[in-house]
Amino acid sequence: MLTELKREAYEANLALPRHGLTHFTFGNASALDRARGIFAIKPSGVPFEKLRPADMVLIDLTGKKIEGKLAPSSDTPTHRRLYLAFKQIGGIVHTHSCHATAFAQAGRAIPNLGTTHADYFFGEIPVTRKLTSAEISGDAYEWETGNVIVERFLKDSLAPLDLPGILVNRHAPFTWHTSVAQAVEIAVAVEYLAHMTFLSLQLDPRLKPIEPALSAKHFSRKHGPAAYYGQASSR
Amino acid sequence: MLTELKREAYEANLALPRHGLTHFTFGNASALDRARGIFAIKPSGVPFEKLRPADMVLIDLTGKKIEGKLAPSSDTPTHRRLYLAFKQIGGIVHTHSCHATAFAQAGRAIPNLGTTHADYFFGEIPVTRKLTSAEISGDAYEWETGNVIVERFLKDSLAPLDLPGILVNRHAPFTWHTSVAQAVEIAVAVEYLAHMTFLSLQLDPRLKPIEPALSAKHFSRKHGPAAYYGQASSR
Amino acid sequence: MLTELKREAYEANLALPRHGLTHFTFGNASALDRARGIFAIKPSGVPFEKLRPADMVLIDLTGKKIEGKLAPSSDTPTHRRLYLAFKQIGGIVHTHSCHATAFAQAGRAIPNLGTTHADYFFGEIPVTRKLTSAEISGDAYEWETGNVIVERFLKDSLAPLDLPGILVNRHAPFTWHTSVAQAVEIAVAVEYLAHMTFLSLQLDPRLKPIEPALSAKHFSRKHGPAAYYGQASSR
Amino acid sequence: MLTELKREAYEANLALPRHGLTHFTFGNASALDRARGIFAIKPSGVPFEKLRPADMVLIDLTGKKIEGKLAPSSDTPTHRRLYLAFKQIGGIVHTHSCHATAFAQAGRAIPNLGTTHADYFFGEIPVTRKLTSAEISGDAYEWETGNVIVERFLKDSLAPLDLPGILVNRHAPFTWHTSVAQAVEIAVAVEYLAHMTFLSLQLDPRLKPIEPALSAKHFSRKHGPAAYYGQASSR
Repeated sequence: MLTELKREAYEANLALPRHGLTHFTFGNASALDRARGIFAIKPSGVPFEKLRPADMVLIDLTGKKIEGKLAPSSDTPTHRRLYLAFKQIGGIVHTHSCHATAFAQAGRAIPNLGTTHADYFFGEIPVTRKLTSAEISGDAYEWETGNVIVERFLKDSLAPLDLPGILVNRHAPFTWHTSVAQAVEIAVAVEYLAHMTFLSLQLDPRLKPIEPALSAKHFSRKHGPAAYYGQASSR
Repeated sequence: MLTELKREAYEANLALPRHGLTHFTFGNASALDRARGIFAIKPSGVPFEKLRPADMVLIDLTGKKIEGKLAPSSDTPTHRRLYLAFKQIGGIVHTHSCHATAFAQAGRAIPNLGTTHADYFFGEIPVTRKLTSAEISGDAYEWETGNVIVERFLKDSLAPLDLPGILVNRHAPFTWHTSVAQAVEIAVAVEYLAHMTFLSLQLDPRLKPIEPALSAKHFSRKHGPAAYYGQASSR
Repeated sequence: MLTELKREAYEANLALPRHGLTHFTFGNASALDRARGIFAIKPSGVPFEKLRPADMVLIDLTGKKIEGKLAPSSDTPTHRRLYLAFKQIGGIVHTHSCHATAFAQAGRAIPNLGTTHADYFFGEIPVTRKLTSAEISGDAYEWETGNVIVERFLKDSLAPLDLPGILVNRHAPFTWHTSVAQAVEIAVAVEYLAHMTFLSLQLDPRLKPIEPALSAKHFSRKHGPAAYYGQASSR
Repeated sequence: MLTELKREAYEANLALPRHGLTHFTFGNASALDRARGIFAIKPSGVPFEKLRPADMVLIDLTGKKIEGKLAPSSDTPTHRRLYLAFKQIGGIVHTHSCHATAFAQAGRAIPNLGTTHADYFFGEIPVTRKLTSAEISGDAYEWETGNVIVERFLKDSLAPLDLPGILVNRHAPFTWHTSVAQAVEIAVAVEYLAHMTFLSLQLDPRLKPIEPALSAKHFSRKHGPAAYYGQASSR
């Protein structure tokens, strides 16, 4: 069942090593059918070059496995937590991409220092608080990982499609969007933004974020009702 | 019409991802027929791998679309502004290449620290001032982006072929030359110079630019009446 | 004899340049048959592209050459020293990979700053003391290189499979595991961890290691009796 | 004439972009027939992908062109100066490789921080003094570039095969060895050493060079009468 959904998730998972975002079995992507409340996710620990579309595991939003011979990604509860909290999203990507993970390891948000950033994120790429020892050591570590992401968005009333990604403190980035293909594009952008911003901060550690007008201009140029970037037919 | 001009612009646009200067739909190149006052430019938001020569949009120097089914790049007014101000140029390239954009985000010119730089630029690669909120939020943001470039050149009486590129503050580099193929080569050079100069400044943040004699020697070795680099037939 | 062991060692040696871990004749890998006390190792100074499985040299744990027309890697005594001391290991890899070697040159351990690290190493990647002039200049330099590795593990009662690699001070990394294929994966991970950790330390030179609970969680998620990462059949 | 010499120079020139050491028309390599006093060098300003073996230009050690339709590299006088001063060398390579050039631009020698370095250079990779304005602006700029290299070696009685390369201040590296193929390998090593050493110095700007015993051990392991690295037949 849901052959097309599994194919979307499969294609997104294969895109991760192709974009240099992940190695070996690291990283995973999932695609959600919101109407049915079922998502397709990568099986755990299978090398990307051995994946087939039929290997994708189907899970419903209560956490029950619907279809699949293999165990799903160990990060499945994190994906489920995000799908439950962020009603607008249809795909999630998790990587350990080099520069973005370096910011996560340092516990630092990625500030909005230029128009490339503003094209994708309406503000800094946030970072979660650290998990507590109890959250880490309990039986629901991956669910708690989702919880600290949701908590960060609730705390400042952030909008998941204005800020389609986050850094989990000491861990790595998660990205999302209306489709998993777009979540992959955001994951590529997060790594590229992390790289450029790292370099800019080395040149000047006290750089301030760009002006609100510039941030608003570039985000609205690509997203929302006033968008004029790209072809009208594809907006 | 202008099939050859469209092909030149097309080839230049394809060269950008091949040189690692751009991803997804970022970046654009245009080629001008100065006699007719018409330039060919990339359509907006089309992925590089889907471009065809016939997709290039023809625009005249008053800003009117002459031919093309697709909407032109949203940066078209910036290109037009530069063609109007810099009479010697025939091609323009815009990228968000990693190291050059890092300097732009930091609002810093790229100083002339060695002979590689001096082979391409007769002095530092300048940076514009920031745009004002009014310039950003009005209807002519991309035209104003061209304006701050021209303003920077007028302010210090800079010569566009001595300094065939600039960093737009908080944004990214633009390069140009007599042909769009040469503008691509300058765009590659700007990224490479930004990378090397970043590293040199990490080794010694107080490095001074090279001596004027060395700058003049290398620039004149490759450009102008006393050039002796390359084959006489191709100078 | 031991055709399969030689093939394993051969495949591991070829994987090193493919993963960008080594150039020219640098780096080497060996595979041990613990029951027979014989290991297969790369011949010295042969470029990777010219290697054949039959070129692997067989050496026993007393240091005697058992089979092979070519001289074994000059680092053979280091491998032998490690096989004698670490009873659980079946494969060793030595590279001069860029970021890991940069830490070795600086005489610094690679601190555990995130979950990517914790997936592979249960604690920091240690660094040896420097060799003394006598150890360097004597006839057993490569054996002494093995000795300082073993000494570092004995000093703090470290477990070779909890910390499957080390940096030799002023030199470069060695990694190991139960099989040489896994030692290659660790070598890739060490380079990647060194790169990310370098970046994190540039962002904040005073970063502290991750909390013990997080380190334990990620290591035990992948290794040992409570592992739940990957498919049960392949654990 | 000298078909084999031209082929050697040609192969070395092609190796430069393949190793990522150069772009466009930057960089050049030459091979010397010491008995005849003639060297084959790349023509000036020809892109690497268009080079053919027959394009190599033959120059004798008095500077006279012996054969070739094209103008030789503008750096030809630098090559000639080095062949005259360093009697043991048979090939020279010049690149603007990224990390090595960053050190040259900063006017800094590359210190010997590890055994990878010690395998190739018996001490730091030196840097020349800056050229004077008179040396730069006169008719013999490229010859004077060779002169400051030779001057640096004479000043400290350095041996060209112990230190088979140098950084020209504000410019870029030159390397050499008994054959041009080996000079290419040194050029690759210089770039790799510059990259690793840059990273080590970022981790600790006050790092001291390695101990003389370690430097001597690694250099003599690969070079000279006591060498035991590689196969006896190929030493």
